[in-house]
Amino acid sequence: MKFSFKNDYSEGCHPAILQALLEHNLDQQAGYGEDEYSLQAKELIKEKIKNPNSEIYFVSGGTQANLIVISSVLRPYQCAISAASGHILNNETGAIEATGHKILSIEKQDGKLAPEDIVHVLENHRNVPHQVMPKLVYISNSTELGTIYTLNELEDLSKFCKENKLYLFMDGARMGHGLTSEISDLTLEKVAELTDIFYLGGTKNGALIGEAIVINNQELQQDFAFNIKQKGALLAKGRLLGIQFLELMKNDLYFDLAKHANQQAMKIKNAMKEKGVHFLSDTYTNQIFPILNNDLIEKLSEKFEFYVWKKIDGNFSAIRLITSWNTDDKPVNDFIEILKNEL
Amino acid sequence: MKFSFKNDYSEGCHPAILQALLEHNLDQQAGYGEDEYSLQAKELIKEKIKNPNSEIYFVSGGTQANLIVISSVLRPYQCAISAASGHILNNETGAIEATGHKILSIEKQDGKLAPEDIVHVLENHRNVPHQVMPKLVYISNSTELGTIYTLNELEDLSKFCKENKLYLFMDGARMGHGLTSEISDLTLEKVAELTDIFYLGGTKNGALIGEAIVINNQELQQDFAFNIKQKGALLAKGRLLGIQFLELMKNDLYFDLAKHANQQAMKIKNAMKEKGVHFLSDTYTNQIFPILNNDLIEKLSEKFEFYVWKKIDGNFSAIRLITSWNTDDKPVNDFIEILKNEL
Amino acid sequence: MKFSFKNDYSEGCHPAILQALLEHNLDQQAGYGEDEYSLQAKELIKEKIKNPNSEIYFVSGGTQANLIVISSVLRPYQCAISAASGHILNNETGAIEATGHKILSIEKQDGKLAPEDIVHVLENHRNVPHQVMPKLVYISNSTELGTIYTLNELEDLSKFCKENKLYLFMDGARMGHGLTSEISDLTLEKVAELTDIFYLGGTKNGALIGEAIVINNQELQQDFAFNIKQKGALLAKGRLLGIQFLELMKNDLYFDLAKHANQQAMKIKNAMKEKGVHFLSDTYTNQIFPILNNDLIEKLSEKFEFYVWKKIDGNFSAIRLITSWNTDDKPVNDFIEILKNEL
Amino acid sequence: MKFSFKNDYSEGCHPAILQALLEHNLDQQAGYGEDEYSLQAKELIKEKIKNPNSEIYFVSGGTQANLIVISSVLRPYQCAISAASGHILNNETGAIEATGHKILSIEKQDGKLAPEDIVHVLENHRNVPHQVMPKLVYISNSTELGTIYTLNELEDLSKFCKENKLYLFMDGARMGHGLTSEISDLTLEKVAELTDIFYLGGTKNGALIGEAIVINNQELQQDFAFNIKQKGALLAKGRLLGIQFLELMKNDLYFDLAKHANQQAMKIKNAMKEKGVHFLSDTYTNQIFPILNNDLIEKLSEKFEFYVWKKIDGNFSAIRLITSWNTDDKPVNDFIEILKNEL
Repeated sequence: MKFSFKNDYSEGCHPAILQALLEHNLDQQAGYGEDEYSLQAKELIKEKIKNPNSEIYFVSGGTQANLIVISSVLRPYQCAISAASGHILNNETGAIEATGHKILSIEKQDGKLAPEDIVHVLENHRNVPHQVMPKLVYISNSTELGTIYTLNELEDLSKFCKENKLYLFMDGARMGHGLTSEISDLTLEKVAELTDIFYLGGTKNGALIGEAIVINNQELQQDFAFNIKQKGALLAKGRLLGIQFLELMKNDLYFDLAKHANQQAMKIKNAMKEKGVHFLSDTYTNQIFPILNNDLIEKLSEKFEFYVWKKIDGNFSAIRLITSWNTDDKPVNDFIEILKNEL
Repeated sequence: MKFSFKNDYSEGCHPAILQALLEHNLDQQAGYGEDEYSLQAKELIKEKIKNPNSEIYFVSGGTQANLIVISSVLRPYQCAISAASGHILNNETGAIEATGHKILSIEKQDGKLAPEDIVHVLENHRNVPHQVMPKLVYISNSTELGTIYTLNELEDLSKFCKENKLYLFMDGARMGHGLTSEISDLTLEKVAELTDIFYLGGTKNGALIGEAIVINNQELQQDFAFNIKQKGALLAKGRLLGIQFLELMKNDLYFDLAKHANQQAMKIKNAMKEKGVHFLSDTYTNQIFPILNNDLIEKLSEKFEFYVWKKIDGNFSAIRLITSWNTDDKPVNDFIEILKNEL
Repeated sequence: MKFSFKNDYSEGCHPAILQALLEHNLDQQAGYGEDEYSLQAKELIKEKIKNPNSEIYFVSGGTQANLIVISSVLRPYQCAISAASGHILNNETGAIEATGHKILSIEKQDGKLAPEDIVHVLENHRNVPHQVMPKLVYISNSTELGTIYTLNELEDLSKFCKENKLYLFMDGARMGHGLTSEISDLTLEKVAELTDIFYLGGTKNGALIGEAIVINNQELQQDFAFNIKQKGALLAKGRLLGIQFLELMKNDLYFDLAKHANQQAMKIKNAMKEKGVHFLSDTYTNQIFPILNNDLIEKLSEKFEFYVWKKIDGNFSAIRLITSWNTDDKPVNDFIEILKNEL
Repeated sequence: MKFSFKNDYSEGCHPAILQALLEHNLDQQAGYGEDEYSLQAKELIKEKIKNPNSEIYFVSGGTQANLIVISSVLRPYQCAISAASGHILNNETGAIEATGHKILSIEKQDGKLAPEDIVHVLENHRNVPHQVMPKLVYISNSTELGTIYTLNELEDLSKFCKENKLYLFMDGARMGHGLTSEISDLTLEKVAELTDIFYLGGTKNGALIGEAIVINNQELQQDFAFNIKQKGALLAKGRLLGIQFLELMKNDLYFDLAKHANQQAMKIKNAMKEKGVHFLSDTYTNQIFPILNNDLIEKLSEKFEFYVWKKIDGNFSAIRLITSWNTDDKPVNDFIEILKNEL
């Protein structure tokens, strides 16, 4: 069977999580997130972000988190702003629009938004009341293109949003990978300080399911639980989410897993760079986009699965490789060996 | 710690499920429900309902299943009809209305709908185009009140719906309990034959999460997956749902678990009946609603948790007791013993 | 041709309105409600309600007004409360639910809500977050059954809503008829003082189209115009609405027209009462619901159009008669004459 | 007072319409579009499009028409495609998204869509079920930029849509201006033949309010009236719409008015061209976008109102001039005279 570099959710979950599920399996617990594991996990997250006033909710997946957050934060006539590569724009079957809200799209090569991008959008949306009102800025870290925000960049964006009465929402489906990137100077504490709301992705970092929505802006906390229930996201057995996040947060397992994924990707990237390979974008997380000769791509695909991301010209294409918390050295080394032999 | 009879989702999952999760944990699988476990589980369900043309989708919970089914089936101006006790009317935070659809409510003592109930609604909704168009009949089996549909009743309802161009949708959050009730003459195969769409609840019958939506009416199958993704219900690790339903469907574990839950409830019910206790409704599934003296209720609540459902008069109240796949003999016997001593 | 008592929108508009449309027809004016007639009409309404801080918006019709008001006021998980006879429940094709909001229904013989009715609903909606949150009380004056609120009743309801953080919204499609009823002690000024938001209906009281939404609660005023535009209700030629309300508000034409309609209905009612006719409800506005022998109904329907509202028994039915600003003495007298001859 | 070239809805309506409103004012008519004027107007339109099977509905305005058509045609997961300049994308406060549907935007200099534009969008939306399904192509004629479709272009687009199972919807807010343009070879009959649905705009062509939605594709006709009522667009006094369209359709008044508007714009355009003025786009309808020196713009704005559309450089800007059915020779000549003196 081929080893898959297609995504970071091909396997089950980290063994410690399964172990905890086994251990607590027959304990009776309150439903709907009132179980003791969920309560403990929330406390742990609050400690890590050093904000006892944040409120935390666990949901199953990223699209669900995005649609609940955005629809609960915006008034009917308000809209979100996103980079054109944003997950909410391209890969969620119109989930946000289905809740009634437009997303304004900004073309960015690196998938990241900066104040100057947003200024332009604001200037073009002043024909009251004939246009939607921009009210929420959606960013991802790491982004859908594997890039990350620096502390400086996030501070600038946060300041700009406050000045312009925009909410700043960070999609953290790959937050672990973003923060443990070798070039990141951002911390979870800073993310909590600089955003109104964000989530910590579990699904792509060792959990079976689960994203932890963290609401820092207190005016957005009111009645939030209603939205989760109304969108069908309140699990009867909330314990499943609580146990997972409790394990991930203990001893920073969450960050260790992400760091491992990043390192495996960097091994491949560095081996490629030594061989003169170019990349679609210069990423330092668990997603890399090397541009390879089509013959080599074919050769690699005999033993590995991955997405051919973009045709570059008649001979070359960019592929996407994703490593995960569970990507061992063996497939990485095997992959590199083929590369070295062929390049 | 008190034993809880509050609901059937207080524990984790059946051990066989955890075992299967462990066994397959590190296998790489395709995401979004294309994993081999999901595919096998769907085949097993098709065999059990003896309908190879049905389509099956797994989602996380009941409210999610209800809102996806109803919003995908109805046109904007169409509405659902439900008994007033229906879960969609009372316990889903307006999830159906949030997708744009009204629910017409019919008061029924036993929580069950019959053709004559619906006729009346249809007659009162003929002022085209000033009123919503009734188009879907929502029923539950077992119902929110613990009652069940007989084969005859479902046949009548199904025939009536076909004649009136109404879709028949059965909420099966407690399908196992309904079908394995000692007085049920209905089978899963018949349910599939007589409804346009239904779901098999896993959450309340031994799974961690999971409901299996079964679409029998082929005109409702088209593009259904889009709706699941759009509502945030498509799990990246669909394997979690697939593995669970595969275990539940193998060797009829699903029905064995439900039958056990029913039997434990019947033990308590029969012990009560011997002592002359009256019930709010005469149920034969895992929910019972005995009417007890308030002193006895207080006594019982020292050792057990349960909901006080309804005040009857100054001295008596109805309580709700729910047993589950994991309710052992011990708490049942202990509960009965207190009863016998006190009554 | 038969004279129609079917409704109060069978004719065009009051001649003074057409005259004003003619007079100003070729003046160039700003669009979207910024024309001078709209601005003047808003000022006149503010004077009449003695509240310079209210904000006023003109829209085309009642269903439009209802759906814009309710969807702009409520958060996604909040719902409205209405008497079961409420127009929003029965005659708007699910327009409110189509904006995502449930309406809780209360059965009331007279179509009017009182605090004690609402208390019961609130008590049954405390299972946070599993149920919708009641947040807006919808009432009509005059009601869909022709009844009206007294000052005392409205004061009680207003006080109750404030205490329970509920918004009070009055549908005034027939506000003129309600306030000019011979038994009304309520004034427009009091309506503005006691409600958060209401509208003044023009369509059923001499305008071609038009309802004036009046927002008294300043926290509900913010960004309201966006909602009007988003729902397709912002007319390019807002002048059409402005000119009409300017005419209606000048010299209290609005109230004179409604009073005339009421008086014509009362003439018929009194003639009937003299003859011992009973009524479905004892109304004092332009809608009456006499219970007549079927033979007499047939006789009357040879010369008049009206709705047969409700079958009472094999021999008797209630009919609905509606008079309007344009109902002359002739049809009223003719109708009464037949009655007198036949009874 | 300055003469306004800001838009084509600054005045009231064509005098013939007011005359008809006067004439029929006190006739009693059925409500909700069942009046005899509406029925006659619909027959006239069917004759003009030579399609007795089309169904016609009158609504108040363009945004309303757009949101009703699109939301009634699409399933929840389907989306519309529009040129980036499309009215639904920029000037309707997210009205379409508020009904749950995404709009995919295509940048086009001339505001017109061609098959090759759409092919690209379709190719990028094949990741089922993770992306919305493109299903409706929205075009305007004349477009928001004053340009028009030729018969050939519309035939190509229509063929492409049929082949790709896309609905073709033409926004005809300025249909009259599009079809009577001196360079148009398209007819209303052809529009009806080549589109699934379109509307004829009255508001911008001599009516007080009103757009006539024409549904040619019979599968889109079913139950359409429900959508109109649900969105608050069904006028009680539908006669107001019926009378207007009856007048506009009689003797082709509709087209005469549009042709007049076009001619007045062309007079200004030709005078400018003689003086060497350049234009943002080469339009042949009632909208022109000349690029003028800022000093001249200031000079003109002393006597005329118009929008400054786009800054070109430090010295030049494009302005937008719109003429209407009611633009007399005098302001046109005065405007041209200033131009000639200054250039």
